Amino acid sequence: MPNELNVPRRGPNELNVPRRVLLGPGPSEVGPRVLRAMSTPLVGHLDPSFVALMEEVKELLRQTFRTANRLTFPLSATGSAGMEAVLVNLLEPGDHAVICVNGVFGGRMVEIARRAGAEVTSVEVPWGEVIDADLLRKTLEALPASTPLRLVACVHAETSTGARQPLEDLSRVAHERGALFVVDAVTSLGGTPVEVDAWGIDASYSGTQKCLSCPPGLSPVTFGEAALARVRERKHKVQSWYLDVSLLEQYWGTDRVYHHTAPISMVYALHEALRVVHEEGLEARFARHVRHHRALVAGLDALGMKMPVAPEYRLPMLNSVFVPGGVDEATVRKRMLERHGIEIGAGLGPWKGQVWRIGLMGDSSTPANVLLVLAALAESLGSSAGGAALGAAERVLAAA
Amino acid sequence: MPNELNVPRRGPNELNVPRRVLLGPGPSEVGPRVLRAMSTPLVGHLDPSFVALMEEVKELLRQTFRTANRLTFPLSATGSAGMEAVLVNLLEPGDHAVICVNGVFGGRMVEIARRAGAEVTSVEVPWGEVIDADLLRKTLEALPASTPLRLVACVHAETSTGARQPLEDLSRVAHERGALFVVDAVTSLGGTPVEVDAWGIDASYSGTQKCLSCPPGLSPVTFGEAALARVRERKHKVQSWYLDVSLLEQYWGTDRVYHHTAPISMVYALHEALRVVHEEGLEARFARHVRHHRALVAGLDALGMKMPVAPEYRLPMLNSVFVPGGVDEATVRKRMLERHGIEIGAGLGPWKGQVWRIGLMGDSSTPANVLLVLAALAESLGSSAGGAALGAAERVLAAA
Repeated sequence: MPNELNVPRRGPNELNVPRRVLLGPGPSEVGPRVLRAMSTPLVGHLDPSFVALMEEVKELLRQTFRTANRLTFPLSATGSAGMEAVLVNLLEPGDHAVICVNGVFGGRMVEIARRAGAEVTSVEVPWGEVIDADLLRKTLEALPASTPLRLVACVHAETSTGARQPLEDLSRVAHERGALFVVDAVTSLGGTPVEVDAWGIDASYSGTQKCLSCPPGLSPVTFGEAALARVRERKHKVQSWYLDVSLLEQYWGTDRVYHHTAPISMVYALHEALRVVHEEGLEARFARHVRHHRALVAGLDALGMKMPVAPEYRLPMLNSVFVPGGVDEATVRKRMLERHGIEIGAGLGPWKGQVWRIGLMGDSSTPANVLLVLAALAESLGSSAGGAALGAAERVLAAA
Repeated sequence: MPNELNVPRRGPNELNVPRRVLLGPGPSEVGPRVLRAMSTPLVGHLDPSFVALMEEVKELLRQTFRTANRLTFPLSATGSAGMEAVLVNLLEPGDHAVICVNGVFGGRMVEIARRAGAEVTSVEVPWGEVIDADLLRKTLEALPASTPLRLVACVHAETSTGARQPLEDLSRVAHERGALFVVDAVTSLGGTPVEVDAWGIDASYSGTQKCLSCPPGLSPVTFGEAALARVRERKHKVQSWYLDVSLLEQYWGTDRVYHHTAPISMVYALHEALRVVHEEGLEARFARHVRHHRALVAGLDALGMKMPVAPEYRLPMLNSVFVPGGVDEATVRKRMLERHGIEIGAGLGPWKGQVWRIGLMGDSSTPANVLLVLAALAESLGSSAGGAALGAAERVLAAA
C-alpha cells in the first residue's frame, strides 16, 4: 500500500519466528488453548464481563497458591516486578530485611530491598546449595534485639541453579523472630507444591511463563493479612505508585477503582492456563514434573553428565547439569538451537560456561521432550551413549 | 477429567466474553492481524529471532515517535508504568519538577514525582483547558534561581478531558530554564503528531491500547541523550530496579544482558500493530482520526449535545461530551453497553456523572463506528434527532 508520500513503503515483514521446543529456564511451551484465548477480541478492562473474569482468575490463583488470601491477583508486569512489588510494599527506609542468597534471584532481592531504603543482611551459601534453618536462626540471633526486622525472604526455586529451598523450617524461624516470611515462587508455582497458608508464607509472587505455561507478562502475587497490616502501618507511601498494593487492592477488589489498564489479553491467557492447570489437578501436575525430571536425570547420568545440585534438593522443573570438560558450551547450545530447534539455558554469573539449565516446566514437561533433549544433547556432544541415555530414561518413564 | 481426588472438578468455564465495540478511553479495537500475531507459538526471549524482532520493534517505535533516540523500546508493563519509569529515572530526592495539571494524568505525574522524592510545583488550569506557555514561564520565573529544576512535564492528550496540549512553546520555555521536557503521549501516539525530535521532547512514554490498537500490556518509551545524561549523573540509584533504564538499555541494547523476561506475545502483537500503523502511514492515520472526530462532533451537535473542550483544543481520538441535563449517565452508558454492545467511557474525578468520553482511537476510528455511536446514543437518550445526527455526520464524511 502506498504511504502518504505515494512511494512504496519498505518495512519489516510479517512476524516469522522459528518453531522452537522451549526447554530452557522459561518461557515454557504454551499450549494451543492458551494461545487461542489470547487471540479473543478484547472487552474493556472495566466491562462487567472482565470484572467477572478477574474474580475467576483471583480464585484460580488462590487454589494454585493454596491460600485463602483475599489479595491474590496477577500484577500487570513480569515476575521481576512481582518481586519488586512485594519488597517495596513491605519495606520502607529504616526497615531491616534478612534475605537468603544462593543464586541470581536472591541477589536480586537484596538489590531491590536496598533500593527500597532497607538495611539488608544476607544469608549466603554457595550456589546450588540451600539455606539451613539453623544458619538462618544464627543470623537472626546475631542481629541486635533492637533491629527493626520486617521480613525474611528466600527463593523457593532458584532458577539460576536448580535448587529447591525447603520452606517450612525457615518460615518457623522467621516467625519466631516476628518477621514476615516472603517467598519467590516464580519457577515453582504450578510445578511443585507452594503451600502459602500451610507453610505460613506471608507474601509471595510468581511468573506466568514457567510452570503455568502461559506467556510472560503477568506476575501472580498473594499477600496475607499480616503483610497487609504491615502495609497499613507504613510511615511513608510506597515508593512505587504502579506497584502500590493499597491502590491495587481497590482496582482488583470489588470497588474497581480505576488505577491502570489491566493487560486484558494476558489475563485471558492466564485464565485459560489456570483452567488447564486445575483440570490436570495440582497433585497430578506435581507428580508429572517429578516423573519427567527423574527420567531426564537417569538419561543425563547415562551420558556421564554430572549435576551440581545434591539429589534431594533438585528442582523437578529446572535441571542444571555440568558442561563436560573440554566442551565449549555455547557451541553445543547453538547446535541444539539451530539444528534441533531446542532452547536450553546457559549458566549465569559464576556458572556461566560451566552449566546448562534444562527446563521441563508446565507443558514442556513431557516424555517426548525428555527423550528429545537427551537425543539431541548426545548428538550435539558427539556422545556414543545416546542409546543408553534414551534406554535409561525410558525405563524410568515405564516404571512410573 | 477427574482430578487427583477422583471426583469431577468444578471450575470456571472457558472464556466467554461478549462482543463489544470499544469506543471508550481505551482499550481500542484490536484488528485480526494483531490478534493472530499474539497467538503465535513462543520463542525464548533471548532467541536470536526474538533479538531481531526487538530491533524491528525499536525501529518502528522510533518512526512512530519521530525520533532518532537510540533508547526507544516497549517497557514490559502498561502506560502508567511508563509514566513512572520516566519520572523515577529522571528525578531523585532533592530535585524539583514542574508539572502541568489539567486532568487526572497530570495529577498522577505529580503523585509519582513526589514518591520519587522530588519537590513538585504544579501548573494548574481547570479541567478541559490547556496550559499556556506564558503561565509556565511565569511559574518558572517565580522559582528561586537556586531551585534544582530537573524537568517540566505535561500530558499531550489528557484522556480524562479530551484536551490536546500544544507542546512546542512549552518545550521552548522549559529548555530556556535548562529543564528537561517530558511528555505523556499515552493517548496521542499514532493518532495525532508526536514529534519527539522536532519539538525537543527529552523523554516520552505511551501505551499500546490507544491509537496503536494493540492490547494493553506494554509502554513504548523514548529517552533522548540529554535525559540519559541526567540518568548517568544521578547521585542515587533509581528507586525501581524493574524500571531502571540503565539496566533496561543493556537488555534492549545490543549487549542483551538478562534483566527480566520480556512479554514475548505482547511484543509479537506490538510488532504487527506497528506494521499496520506504518502501512497506513502516519499522516494518513492522523487525517483519518481528524475526519472521524469532525463527523462525530457534527453528529453530537445535531443531537444538541455540548462539549467541554474548546474546538481548537479538542483531541481527535477522545471526545468528551456533556451528559444532557436530567439524564442519568450510568443508565445511558449501561444501555449503550447492554443493548448495543458499545463501550463508552464515564467521566472521572470532578467530571464524574457530568460527561461521557467517546474514543475513536486507532482501529476504532471508522465511519461505521461514528454512525453507530451516534445512532445508539440517540436511541439510548430517547432523542428524536438521531436522523439529523446521522445526516450531519455523513455530510462531514462525504466532504472529506
